[in-house]
Amino acid sequence: MKTSASIALIASVLAFTTTASAQFAKPDDAIRYRKSALFVMQQNFGRVAAMASGKAPFDAKIVADSAAVADFTSKLPWAAFGEGTDKGDTRAKAEIWKESAKFKEYADKMQVEMSKLAVAAKTGNLDNIKAAVNATGGTCKTCHDAYRKD
Amino acid sequence: MKTSASIALIASVLAFTTTASAQFAKPDDAIRYRKSALFVMQQNFGRVAAMASGKAPFDAKIVADSAAVADFTSKLPWAAFGEGTDKGDTRAKAEIWKESAKFKEYADKMQVEMSKLAVAAKTGNLDNIKAAVNATGGTCKTCHDAYRKD
Repeated sequence: MKTSASIALIASVLAFTTTASAQFAKPDDAIRYRKSALFVMQQNFGRVAAMASGKAPFDAKIVADSAAVADFTSKLPWAAFGEGTDKGDTRAKAEIWKESAKFKEYADKMQVEMSKLAVAAKTGNLDNIKAAVNATGGTCKTCHDAYRKD
Repeated sequence: MKTSASIALIASVLAFTTTASAQFAKPDDAIRYRKSALFVMQQNFGRVAAMASGKAPFDAKIVADSAAVADFTSKLPWAAFGEGTDKGDTRAKAEIWKESAKFKEYADKMQVEMSKLAVAAKTGNLDNIKAAVNATGGTCKTCHDAYRKD
């Protein structure tokens, strides 16, 4: 199975549905799950961004592999934003559950850009990687500004 | 790129090396990273185990997709056990850094069994999935018994 097909398959199952939230034993597990997935993603994305900007020595292999991990993990958090997971150890704003279509749109956009970054990272072309890092980072910020508490 | 090849590639880069630990800005990030990856893995493995044992209704698609996520994430924690990450918010025993070859052997064994589980999960054969869940769970327990504080 190709990676892209595999990821699409996983994404389709772990989609933003209330059914998906039933996959967690309790709301705290869902909250920890999405934070964990986002942290793994952010660490890998951050590594790519640091190398793209020259803050860390560029290593094409680490960039490609880290971007692939960020791409894969970018699909995971969304199933864990089910009903009842708005309270607890989370900075998620209540608006997420009031504006679920918009939240999903932002989440989808990020995943699209992260996948483009993974493709760019495989080519090793620094200009393409930089552009994709900026586009992806923009989608993170848009969503955080709207839906994450300070 | 095939998933298995992709995972192998990632695993080779994120291998258990001191170089890899330099990928984290600070030891606390590495600790949080490995705990996050292990939690995402455990939640997906636990879902498969629950369905395999009849504690949750069996859904072949969820089983296959969850096992694929568990397989992918099983490769990630080990780069985050670098030098200097033995102190902090962690239950990792100091023996991990004293017996690194044995710890790596346990970690490798788990990844092998988790990959077999992902293969079994794709087939949808319940007996095979059950056997693979047991084998994988055994490798988790062996490592936790030796290297995780109560």
